[in-house]
Amino acid sequence: MKLGIQAIAFDAYGTLFDVYSVIALCELKFPGRGVELSKLWRAKQLEYTWLRSLSRQYEDFWMVTESALVFACRSLNLACPSQTREELMESYLHLEIFSDVKTALAKLSRFKLAILSNGSPRMLSAVVKNAGLNGLFTDVISVDEVKIYKTSPRVYGLVSQHLGVPNIAVAFASSNFWDIAGAKSFGLWTCWVNRGKLPEEELSVMPDVTVPTLDGLVNILTDPTGSRQK
Amino acid sequence: MKLGIQAIAFDAYGTLFDVYSVIALCELKFPGRGVELSKLWRAKQLEYTWLRSLSRQYEDFWMVTESALVFACRSLNLACPSQTREELMESYLHLEIFSDVKTALAKLSRFKLAILSNGSPRMLSAVVKNAGLNGLFTDVISVDEVKIYKTSPRVYGLVSQHLGVPNIAVAFASSNFWDIAGAKSFGLWTCWVNRGKLPEEELSVMPDVTVPTLDGLVNILTDPTGSRQK
Repeated sequence: MKLGIQAIAFDAYGTLFDVYSVIALCELKFPGRGVELSKLWRAKQLEYTWLRSLSRQYEDFWMVTESALVFACRSLNLACPSQTREELMESYLHLEIFSDVKTALAKLSRFKLAILSNGSPRMLSAVVKNAGLNGLFTDVISVDEVKIYKTSPRVYGLVSQHLGVPNIAVAFASSNFWDIAGAKSFGLWTCWVNRGKLPEEELSVMPDVTVPTLDGLVNILTDPTGSRQK
Repeated sequence: MKLGIQAIAFDAYGTLFDVYSVIALCELKFPGRGVELSKLWRAKQLEYTWLRSLSRQYEDFWMVTESALVFACRSLNLACPSQTREELMESYLHLEIFSDVKTALAKLSRFKLAILSNGSPRMLSAVVKNAGLNGLFTDVISVDEVKIYKTSPRVYGLVSQHLGVPNIAVAFASSNFWDIAGAKSFGLWTCWVNRGKLPEEELSVMPDVTVPTLDGLVNILTDPTGSRQK
């Protein structure tokens, strides 16, 4: 069966944008504690999106990210004055893209391309602009529109609604397995970009394909020899 | 304003039942790695309940707990033969209660008492029986009835439905701040039993009261001098 993909939606943080600079700034501000802080910050950031979604207490990703930072610092007994907090938060607006991103987007330009992210519209617009990706996407879609986070089915349904293609023609690429599981459960064709060489999660669903970088996705979706057939 | 509490629902794991024995068995099976394994196991167990709820992919807590164990072992490169896995899982059915539980339940017997837990009916029934708590609760309520986990409002609504008292007359006690946040957002009166002396989470809601053990809750709900007034 041919895939028949017409549109590709990419997760943002960790998939297109490298959050390494956030980790580096954590280390600069809290020498010797940066890795620990950034890990807990990220874990709480996600946890709060899930809890708030489930409790129907949505607040946007900027607020959730800042709350997670405040908790992480408190939990690790790190004094974080407001200026430090602001600097750490601002780092989310200036992320570098992974080295494979620009080439992959160019090679996939025959498809409708979109970002589908937990990020707030302001955060996404800043990070896309600052990374020089303006104009490369048909749409940059934030969950803010439906006031609930991934992995709600309402989120994954946004791609088809925004791009005007059926769900069955949408590919979704993310470096987060849990995000892939959500998209796959919803019914999208999924590509796990396993940048971190992580083990598969136990969520009863598997990605359609797993690739180490976006190059792998390009090969699968543009290979004329038929290896894109499933 | 008088509290007017008529019923008290308790979270199970970590609130009434001490999961220390699970941690001890992890250490026995994987010397030197037990703490690390049990931490990741617990984190994944919760994460999977939230993700599955949000994706509408409910499976019961036994299955989710086992999935979390499988992932945690894989992630830590620990070989876990099926017999070890079964033993670790079985340890969830034989948990000791914290030392304050029996006295507190006795002193609170004028109220309708219930358990409200993510645990499956089989898990809860086993753990209650094995700890000698049979007959002390009006009801043992599992989220399995609504096929979604905490912190869904549907879960917290079960107490009032089961016990026949209005939500405003229900107290909810949990050692998990996130659980308290869910119950409070729903509208219950909440008591955070902060057994672990943990910092407050940043979820925009606060417990009505915070106590170090269940003795504190007993004092608040049975003190005739009026300190139970808010």
